[in-house]
Amino acid sequence: MKTIKRIGLVIKPHAPEIEDVMRDLARFAGERKLELRPEEVAARKLGLGAGIPREKVASESDLLAVLGGDGTLLSVAHLAARQKVPVLGVNLGRLGFLTEVPRDEMILTLDAFLSGNESIVSPRGLLEARVLGETYLCLNDVVVNKGAKARMIEFRIWIDDKEIATVKADGLIVSTPTGSTAYSLSAGGPIVHPAVPAMILAPICPHTLSFRPMAVASSSRVRLRILADSEEAYLTMDGQRGLPLHRDSVVEIAWSGLTLQLISSPRRNYFDLLHEKLGWG
Amino acid sequence: MKTIKRIGLVIKPHAPEIEDVMRDLARFAGERKLELRPEEVAARKLGLGAGIPREKVASESDLLAVLGGDGTLLSVAHLAARQKVPVLGVNLGRLGFLTEVPRDEMILTLDAFLSGNESIVSPRGLLEARVLGETYLCLNDVVVNKGAKARMIEFRIWIDDKEIATVKADGLIVSTPTGSTAYSLSAGGPIVHPAVPAMILAPICPHTLSFRPMAVASSSRVRLRILADSEEAYLTMDGQRGLPLHRDSVVEIAWSGLTLQLISSPRRNYFDLLHEKLGWG
Amino acid sequence: MKTIKRIGLVIKPHAPEIEDVMRDLARFAGERKLELRPEEVAARKLGLGAGIPREKVASESDLLAVLGGDGTLLSVAHLAARQKVPVLGVNLGRLGFLTEVPRDEMILTLDAFLSGNESIVSPRGLLEARVLGETYLCLNDVVVNKGAKARMIEFRIWIDDKEIATVKADGLIVSTPTGSTAYSLSAGGPIVHPAVPAMILAPICPHTLSFRPMAVASSSRVRLRILADSEEAYLTMDGQRGLPLHRDSVVEIAWSGLTLQLISSPRRNYFDLLHEKLGWG
Amino acid sequence: MKTIKRIGLVIKPHAPEIEDVMRDLARFAGERKLELRPEEVAARKLGLGAGIPREKVASESDLLAVLGGDGTLLSVAHLAARQKVPVLGVNLGRLGFLTEVPRDEMILTLDAFLSGNESIVSPRGLLEARVLGETYLCLNDVVVNKGAKARMIEFRIWIDDKEIATVKADGLIVSTPTGSTAYSLSAGGPIVHPAVPAMILAPICPHTLSFRPMAVASSSRVRLRILADSEEAYLTMDGQRGLPLHRDSVVEIAWSGLTLQLISSPRRNYFDLLHEKLGWG
Repeated sequence: MKTIKRIGLVIKPHAPEIEDVMRDLARFAGERKLELRPEEVAARKLGLGAGIPREKVASESDLLAVLGGDGTLLSVAHLAARQKVPVLGVNLGRLGFLTEVPRDEMILTLDAFLSGNESIVSPRGLLEARVLGETYLCLNDVVVNKGAKARMIEFRIWIDDKEIATVKADGLIVSTPTGSTAYSLSAGGPIVHPAVPAMILAPICPHTLSFRPMAVASSSRVRLRILADSEEAYLTMDGQRGLPLHRDSVVEIAWSGLTLQLISSPRRNYFDLLHEKLGWG
Repeated sequence: MKTIKRIGLVIKPHAPEIEDVMRDLARFAGERKLELRPEEVAARKLGLGAGIPREKVASESDLLAVLGGDGTLLSVAHLAARQKVPVLGVNLGRLGFLTEVPRDEMILTLDAFLSGNESIVSPRGLLEARVLGETYLCLNDVVVNKGAKARMIEFRIWIDDKEIATVKADGLIVSTPTGSTAYSLSAGGPIVHPAVPAMILAPICPHTLSFRPMAVASSSRVRLRILADSEEAYLTMDGQRGLPLHRDSVVEIAWSGLTLQLISSPRRNYFDLLHEKLGWG
Repeated sequence: MKTIKRIGLVIKPHAPEIEDVMRDLARFAGERKLELRPEEVAARKLGLGAGIPREKVASESDLLAVLGGDGTLLSVAHLAARQKVPVLGVNLGRLGFLTEVPRDEMILTLDAFLSGNESIVSPRGLLEARVLGETYLCLNDVVVNKGAKARMIEFRIWIDDKEIATVKADGLIVSTPTGSTAYSLSAGGPIVHPAVPAMILAPICPHTLSFRPMAVASSSRVRLRILADSEEAYLTMDGQRGLPLHRDSVVEIAWSGLTLQLISSPRRNYFDLLHEKLGWG
Repeated sequence: MKTIKRIGLVIKPHAPEIEDVMRDLARFAGERKLELRPEEVAARKLGLGAGIPREKVASESDLLAVLGGDGTLLSVAHLAARQKVPVLGVNLGRLGFLTEVPRDEMILTLDAFLSGNESIVSPRGLLEARVLGETYLCLNDVVVNKGAKARMIEFRIWIDDKEIATVKADGLIVSTPTGSTAYSLSAGGPIVHPAVPAMILAPICPHTLSFRPMAVASSSRVRLRILADSEEAYLTMDGQRGLPLHRDSVVEIAWSGLTLQLISSPRRNYFDLLHEKLGWG
């Protein structure tokens, strides 16, 4: 592990107790002689100058703290993965699958991480989506969705250059194991443990009832083409970034080779989290 | 049954064999001394003058023939129901749930209907959706859907003025038994026989996994309000007509009291149709 | 409503707090000059003599109190329906769908019922299953299940004498709306409000993925025949009574025309109960 | 690849065309100077002496041909895996997921295999179930099931010694990717490509609706204990071998380290097979 000198800070500005938790973090950084590198809105709230634009925080930090919800963390996960900066997600409000450290376990989790407890660091692979010459990194999922006014879209799927199906549906979710407990689960996909090297394909409201959720090896490449009868379609990465698709648009999805180091609380393992989030008896 | 003197004609213009089937129908009408009342595009193709605008065909007919697919039939179903004009749907292409008469059974079905065979007429109740002061009749379903860019929408549901749940989801389908085999089925809803007096509520990708499809009595009134956190939402009636919804938009759905007389082939009952469409063993 | 003079009492003997709740009920009966008619095990616990065999309690009561869980209530529901005796289910332990009155609302619910508050009485239709010359009344469901050692069973289904499908599956659940929130829900069936006059057919692990849960009108008759390739099969009524089926065994299921008057708490409507039991939001 | 000198033969005795296909195989073996080693019933039908007991065929062969259905192949898969003998499954009747070579592709598939075409050999990992001191190898799945008369069973699950849930259900299927398209699919489990190193846990009719199908890494160990309230339970391996379980019975399931070499037709890849078997588009 690289020596940690700078803690980046990204926040959900209107989250409950955000001011208090930022101050807890600033105090901790001061005590440990660590430099706090807040994004702009956080810097303003803390009276710490101008701050750094959100998209640069990861590249100027050795550890990234995210205070907010899973959406906040997803907005910087791809940047942190590229910079190989580990991420600690603290949830303000409801327990998240990514921001699973509650406020009152933030300091003990930071302590455990800084003292080298590697058992709380979970490596999470990211997908890479290529479309129209651009490449996007995704921690959770790549989603192709019909437009609100369209009745359904039609697309063809190839896996490793083998055509597997032509599907009429509201859309398709291609997710990592990390994303399997997010949108994919709502669409009927399985829960896939982060240690399984797989991609999950979960159709959204498929017309063919036997076109069921599927997991393929993480070494596979998925290609999807929007067919001519479709009207509007839309591509969304991690529920954060998006762009419109058109007839004959092609999206290619594969493992990126990049991994995010996600820090979890020493008090809660993966199955504890499932248990709590899903209300298992 | 009212005496049938005028056969209205609505078509899907580019359907395979559409010209031939129209001519079969025109010949049949001529032999039986029935007046054919085609919509504009059909009139042009038949060389029968200007024709009638689609939205007026039902009101100027005693029986409405639809040549095309379920979408074509849905575009006029509400008009036919209001005018109490029975509808015969002939599928050109794939068997439909509404257009279930194949081309080569069209004449025998018309003969059976005209000779008073009531066993082939299936009464189908329509829903009424009220939103922003307007009322819409629906044979299949009323759908509230998130916009393509939104991650999900949040809405509250009341049944008969009792609040039943606050739901985060991609949307909600409220369908008739007739619509239970359409979009609702793709979303995980049950198949509901047309003789069951019920409305089906099927959530689309609900965040709460235990919020399952539900059937309530057809005498119930469903009210739905889009909550403040939602971004774009959209309302679609029968997959044909739509309008945008906003925060605090309210949609009210109830049985309309109106019934469409849907004519089916004497060779196929409801369960035969399910069997064939769903590929049951 | 008939004048209530005798309160029958059926219990789950080892339920938590059963002694206390019985005594609360006995005290209430004493104050109101009502005769308590306990089943044998309850009589012993109360020191009230020999008691009545469970299967005779309904016929010697004007109101039947069940202290326990849904299983306890199901064991006498068919008898109470036949005798037209209303039933109050008090749950000791977890909230039930049938025993939905908690201990501390028992007296206020009895008061409301005895003072003629009809809004808390919910009429629940029962199914009638005929097999091998015998007839069984069921409040929740009739289940055909494979034996533990069999891989699957094969059966054919008719509705109103129309053959609808030949199914390979672990089994089939035919349920009332009341039973739709019990076993049928676990098998993927819809929630059906008790006011909907329907029967639900939910296949258990069907081989054909498109053989989905279905609701048919309560006036329909369902017939099912075990086919020759099946090994062991078993029929269970309300999860309480059962018998083995064999190749070519036929089961016929229809509405019985009988209705159970189920008493609920004035503090909780049907949707409140769903909300609480299913953990909606 | 080991030199192939002996072809073992296992059959489904009453399969259609079984005699003809055996003769095709015998003729092929003769032409290639390969020794045919039929099981007893096959030897009798071919007039080739006494034959070998089914459970010894794999150990006396270099290649095992199975003529029948998936059940026939599953009955010897564990023996072939232990002996490292590749298996060719020829379906007589319906296309199988394991017996996917049709009769008229048998010879060309054997030719391709014998000439060293490795692209048609798919390695399939097997699970190992330990119970009551015995170990069982499974190609498809290990199933814990309630008895026919029991309403449900209750069990606790541990993964890698972490308790993950206490479940009330009809049962649990732990399957390999190979088994993901068998019983697990009927229970709502995902399709998992054979190249994904994972085990799938699919609950059968779980009481807790959010206890959804799950995939864990193939390096995980699953432990399951039947809890005290359960009545009868039953353990089935590959739908072929079974034994009763009791209160407090413990079943442990992990990868065995053994792999079956499954031979497929050069004319059909994995996704072609899914397409055909599941009726996709």
